[in-house]
Amino acid sequence: MKVQLVDHNLSDSAVVRAARVSTVGGTHRLLPEPPTAESTERDAGLIGYLMRERHGSPFEHGSLTLYVEAPIFVFREWQRHRIASYNEESARYRELKPDFYLPPVDRDLVQVGKPGAYTFEPGTIEQLATVDTELSTAYRAAYEAYERMLAAGIAREIARAALPVGTYSSMYVTMNPRGLMNFLSLRTHRQDATFVSHPQREIEVCAEKAEAIFRALMPITHAAFEKNGRVAP
Amino acid sequence: MKVQLVDHNLSDSAVVRAARVSTVGGTHRLLPEPPTAESTERDAGLIGYLMRERHGSPFEHGSLTLYVEAPIFVFREWQRHRIASYNEESARYRELKPDFYLPPVDRDLVQVGKPGAYTFEPGTIEQLATVDTELSTAYRAAYEAYERMLAAGIAREIARAALPVGTYSSMYVTMNPRGLMNFLSLRTHRQDATFVSHPQREIEVCAEKAEAIFRALMPITHAAFEKNGRVAP
Amino acid sequence: MKVQLVDHNLSDSAVVRAARVSTVGGTHRLLPEPPTAESTERDAGLIGYLMRERHGSPFEHGSLTLYVEAPIFVFREWQRHRIASYNEESARYRELKPDFYLPPVDRDLVQVGKPGAYTFEPGTIEQLATVDTELSTAYRAAYEAYERMLAAGIAREIARAALPVGTYSSMYVTMNPRGLMNFLSLRTHRQDATFVSHPQREIEVCAEKAEAIFRALMPITHAAFEKNGRVAP
Amino acid sequence: MKVQLVDHNLSDSAVVRAARVSTVGGTHRLLPEPPTAESTERDAGLIGYLMRERHGSPFEHGSLTLYVEAPIFVFREWQRHRIASYNEESARYRELKPDFYLPPVDRDLVQVGKPGAYTFEPGTIEQLATVDTELSTAYRAAYEAYERMLAAGIAREIARAALPVGTYSSMYVTMNPRGLMNFLSLRTHRQDATFVSHPQREIEVCAEKAEAIFRALMPITHAAFEKNGRVAP
Repeated sequence: MKVQLVDHNLSDSAVVRAARVSTVGGTHRLLPEPPTAESTERDAGLIGYLMRERHGSPFEHGSLTLYVEAPIFVFREWQRHRIASYNEESARYRELKPDFYLPPVDRDLVQVGKPGAYTFEPGTIEQLATVDTELSTAYRAAYEAYERMLAAGIAREIARAALPVGTYSSMYVTMNPRGLMNFLSLRTHRQDATFVSHPQREIEVCAEKAEAIFRALMPITHAAFEKNGRVAP
Repeated sequence: MKVQLVDHNLSDSAVVRAARVSTVGGTHRLLPEPPTAESTERDAGLIGYLMRERHGSPFEHGSLTLYVEAPIFVFREWQRHRIASYNEESARYRELKPDFYLPPVDRDLVQVGKPGAYTFEPGTIEQLATVDTELSTAYRAAYEAYERMLAAGIAREIARAALPVGTYSSMYVTMNPRGLMNFLSLRTHRQDATFVSHPQREIEVCAEKAEAIFRALMPITHAAFEKNGRVAP
Repeated sequence: MKVQLVDHNLSDSAVVRAARVSTVGGTHRLLPEPPTAESTERDAGLIGYLMRERHGSPFEHGSLTLYVEAPIFVFREWQRHRIASYNEESARYRELKPDFYLPPVDRDLVQVGKPGAYTFEPGTIEQLATVDTELSTAYRAAYEAYERMLAAGIAREIARAALPVGTYSSMYVTMNPRGLMNFLSLRTHRQDATFVSHPQREIEVCAEKAEAIFRALMPITHAAFEKNGRVAP
Repeated sequence: MKVQLVDHNLSDSAVVRAARVSTVGGTHRLLPEPPTAESTERDAGLIGYLMRERHGSPFEHGSLTLYVEAPIFVFREWQRHRIASYNEESARYRELKPDFYLPPVDRDLVQVGKPGAYTFEPGTIEQLATVDTELSTAYRAAYEAYERMLAAGIAREIARAALPVGTYSSMYVTMNPRGLMNFLSLRTHRQDATFVSHPQREIEVCAEKAEAIFRALMPITHAAFEKNGRVAP
């Protein structure tokens, strides 16, 4: 799975600028003064306050565009997040390539407990082999059927019905920092006194990659998000 | 494919009530007077005006909940509409049933032209047989692999990677009339001087069923939508 | 200030129905069985779980339409909530009436502390008299200027520039239960270990009226919202 | 009224990149090749097609942040656009300055026709003088009342009730290109066979300034928007 930074205009200072309009009005300037230790600390204090008190709107000014390659079942979950913009590879417009998802050897394979309160455990060697064989065989059979239908002149949008949700797709997705934090909050592991999130591991892998990009671009905001228990403002 | 009315509180009069607040203030009353020929004509005039002049907000007061059964590739398109609420069957939480989509005999199978400007033509008998055989065989192989993985103790969320996008899923979807008209506008055939929409036939079948429900519940609004070239306000 | 129920199709059972599609598929039926003590308890358990674990989407199926009369400065705050639908009286299309907001005698008049951490204290008799006199006088002067401009043939949309934000307006607003809980969460007083909300009292009065309606229509959901610390899912 | 560019990452090439993922997959690269006459023409063709056929999502990747100073009645209209992010000066957190809107001499003052079908005509010299005098007097009286209440220790959030909707406020607003085009479409004059938009002139002035910025940053997209009758995709 792949999550790449494509474009962005994120910055911690955009959060501060937007928040300060409430109390001191517009403060942008063509040539901003370089940050000092003091101004950075003051900004961090303000951002922490906004996060804690759920003043979410200052975290919406700016956008991050990512390029993602992941199986369809991951995109199905991701695209349920509605405060985001998507453009995805189309199986109506192009022939999909034979790229399919196989769980890596360290993927836990066995789920324990009931819906809503799963935990996962590693599989045995036999189970790993089963997954590998069954998925590979099913993927190959599906793709060969797909190709035969295309060769017979069948429309792509019909032939693709045979393709499994483990097929890789690709998309550009754009989010603002607030939407991104909400996505991270729900799609990475999080635990507090009353709540344990349990995202599917495959989307969590994507979310972790997105989070690394976010952390690099907005370190103060990311630290405040962490400190706030990974709850989006 | 199935589209059923589950719940709603739609009415043409809700559009009128919301629009009139602009010019005459609140007009709701506990016991509304029964409509007369004159009041109906006046309402139809107002609704036509709102639609034509793109005053969209009066069409947002109320909601329609539908229950839908359709293949995953249809849900993938449907759920890209963000002004709507979705709850769908989960392949993480439950074992999916062996229900799969096969095109009916009157489905055009051959696409002509280039991306963005397709037209469709009927397939030959041989092509229909190919689709039927290939899809059935691929579906069966995928489902058997799925069942063997489950039997081997593999988590549902992993085993489901083998299942094709032709697998049926089910969801509740809730939209307001404006969101619904936007959905219909993009997912049913529409043609004017500059524009030809070309939705995939399978989602169009669902959209047509949703439209029949909408037409029955909001006949004046639906007529205005038709008259407006099926463009949402 | 006035908040009236106009129309709705809310129910606790709609939440349960939407949530259960994940695990058991569609469960709606034309003639639902009457609830039993056991089914009500089971529903309450599920709703509490959804609220606590932040499964928000089942709380989106259905809508509530309210009619609100409140000063413009309240509407300015309310309409910043974007997951909602609004139609408001138009000062371009109609002449506004001379209805203005005066704080009731029990309204705290003095703010203590700095931005973001206010508390309020009662005013003195003199302060109350000052507010009453100053606002009344300013309102009257503004409205008389407005009327003179209209009498001179000036367009309503220009003359209204003189009218104060304390002028009453009216609107229909429609929200789903999730959006409503988010609104209540931010616009009523709430305090926990890390967070104190401090909405302006005037919008809080409206929010409390909206909450009473919500509580009556969705008692189980409202109780779960309370139990969850008044945080929206 | 002031509309300033604060920050953005808009480009015509972002539209093309997002759209092409449908048909050819991810095409971003660290060092893009410089555009040629041929590639620019191809991009313009694609963007025109997307606009015409209402493929709106490729126009959502990227964001534009503006700083706006305008009277409250303009912000009341602007903030009804929900696909946007706002942070505004707070009259709860700070004392507003005595800045008020007076129509310029070339503002048409007289409205002719009925709601929904207005046209405007210039005022007489007397009417212009009336507006100037009445608004100035009302503004001054309101601001003096405001200051007296503040001097008496009354909370800002109460005292501001006296301030007119002609008072200037300031905000940062962030939109993506699609949201911006929708805003322009509804808030600038537009006329076709069936439709005449009639925005209030004051918000139109702001929209025209925003449009000049948009045109400079995304010339190909803007030209396609114009060619498409100024209808947003």
